[in-house]
Amino acid sequence: MKVKMGGKSRDIPAVWWENGKVLAIDQTRLPRSLKILRISDHREAALAIKNMAVRGAPTIGATAAYSLALAWKNGESIKRADKLLRSTRPTAYDLFFALDWMLERMDNPVDSAIEYASGIASQCRKIGEHGAKLIRDGSTVLTHCNAGALATVDFGTALAPIRIAHRSGKRLTVLVDETRPRLQGAKLTSWELVNEGINHAIITDNAAGHYLKSDVDLVIVGADRIAKNGDAANKIGTYEKAVVAKENGVPFYMAAPMSTFDPHISGEGDMPIEERDQSEVLQIGMERIGPPGAVARNPVFDVTPAKYITGFITEKGIRKPSEIAGLIGKR
Amino acid sequence: MKVKMGGKSRDIPAVWWENGKVLAIDQTRLPRSLKILRISDHREAALAIKNMAVRGAPTIGATAAYSLALAWKNGESIKRADKLLRSTRPTAYDLFFALDWMLERMDNPVDSAIEYASGIASQCRKIGEHGAKLIRDGSTVLTHCNAGALATVDFGTALAPIRIAHRSGKRLTVLVDETRPRLQGAKLTSWELVNEGINHAIITDNAAGHYLKSDVDLVIVGADRIAKNGDAANKIGTYEKAVVAKENGVPFYMAAPMSTFDPHISGEGDMPIEERDQSEVLQIGMERIGPPGAVARNPVFDVTPAKYITGFITEKGIRKPSEIAGLIGKR
Repeated sequence: MKVKMGGKSRDIPAVWWENGKVLAIDQTRLPRSLKILRISDHREAALAIKNMAVRGAPTIGATAAYSLALAWKNGESIKRADKLLRSTRPTAYDLFFALDWMLERMDNPVDSAIEYASGIASQCRKIGEHGAKLIRDGSTVLTHCNAGALATVDFGTALAPIRIAHRSGKRLTVLVDETRPRLQGAKLTSWELVNEGINHAIITDNAAGHYLKSDVDLVIVGADRIAKNGDAANKIGTYEKAVVAKENGVPFYMAAPMSTFDPHISGEGDMPIEERDQSEVLQIGMERIGPPGAVARNPVFDVTPAKYITGFITEKGIRKPSEIAGLIGKR
Repeated sequence: MKVKMGGKSRDIPAVWWENGKVLAIDQTRLPRSLKILRISDHREAALAIKNMAVRGAPTIGATAAYSLALAWKNGESIKRADKLLRSTRPTAYDLFFALDWMLERMDNPVDSAIEYASGIASQCRKIGEHGAKLIRDGSTVLTHCNAGALATVDFGTALAPIRIAHRSGKRLTVLVDETRPRLQGAKLTSWELVNEGINHAIITDNAAGHYLKSDVDLVIVGADRIAKNGDAANKIGTYEKAVVAKENGVPFYMAAPMSTFDPHISGEGDMPIEERDQSEVLQIGMERIGPPGAVARNPVFDVTPAKYITGFITEKGIRKPSEIAGLIGKR
């Protein structure tokens, strides 16, 4: 992705391998400062995933793949490293997919991890090419959370069609849900769109419904785990946007590489939903927002049932929810 | 409402008349500190309404009524004071209702304003009594924004049934949408519920849909303006909650006194929607959340069409949207 570092314009991914270390953009510091983490063992990597310094299902998968390469290079137990990494975050399927994929390719784990991460980035480019066909000149597209280059090694899932459409000269407006509690829309998606010069406005999550009534032509979001029946977990709030989009006849697409599709679960009932610390809700920056004595609940994903999803934009093309079981079977 | 001031427990309204001045709780400082504004002319009052130091449709109405009494006491032009007050905020109908009501009762404006404000508080108590019948023991109730005592002189609209149910010994859990951008749920509703000892949890606005799937028995929110056909404007995000509630078969009620019902407009198309400064979205407390160069859109109300509203809880009882035209006609 395009970034500005030390006054220069550069093109870097969200996470990469360099001189025996894993380098990653620290996403907790954006948009204020662009800091690169230099990770030298898998424990640091696990912590970076847990603390969301690296986040987004495909980026978590790539970081986990690199982490096994680090454990191998440091002569540590692969089994224990694998177990630690699997315990970091429960919802994104890419984490488990990437670790399974790596365990079958541990003859040369550094090359395998690089292959995994670059594969994700090229899948995202294909997602962009397929998805861009859905975006007409002059469209307004709503997106939720960050399913951009930061979340997917490079290029993005939900943002990939938007990038391709923009680069091909289509005029478009992106409405970016700020995405409480961690504000990945306002902090990360907006930062990526500013860097690319793509016209957009940040809105509160509450305002999405208002704009879905008349302004929005298309919704594109990412996904963290997609079940065989097409039910899909994504950032909390996605479900509301999908229901309101359907109510207003606005097409609702989820963009994800095949590594987000979980062949082991049949539907919503099997989805593990992470609940994170209540301080993410009660505290914003330095400010405590609730009164003394108040408590919060903080589920950070929800599940959108297949009936609200118009289609999935994958590297293999655009597929209906009813086609997912067959698609996963063929992988 | 119950508050703690200087270590003592007191019972005060959101706004009141005392020794020739209007006193009001400064709602922009809660929950951090309880500061009482002492307002001595209608210009200060207009500013307090505009800046949302006093807010909530019925409280805005009462403050406007007191402001005309101030203008009269200060020997100023009632016509000009009325015009200034009408220009403060466009959406809440109570503002215009209260000013019209006062203009017909300017023989003794101080008594008239006191009568108006105490009338609102007693209507809210009746709303509470009617609405409490909807709340079963053990219920989970979702609310959005602050439609509590702060918003309604005293007692609340949406919170009135919750208070009465709690005081009558019913066990209940309130899920409080934090309500971006100004966080009236997290800052004000939670503060009122803590003061009353009512069990509740703050959630992000994004999480409401997740809980509407299985946990929530009933939604009760306030309203800022209700049209003849039952379409109703309320805090941005209300529309999304109403759509998702209906999708899940959860009853969705709006609680409001008759001063919120506007006999002059027929439906959604006539509703004026306020858009406030984008800094409310881009800045939280001291923290700027968007990157340099980012812009925001900030509509602060949306309109919920009548078909999503199970009923209106008014001081005259609970009414279906289809009964509103008749109800307003009889006023």
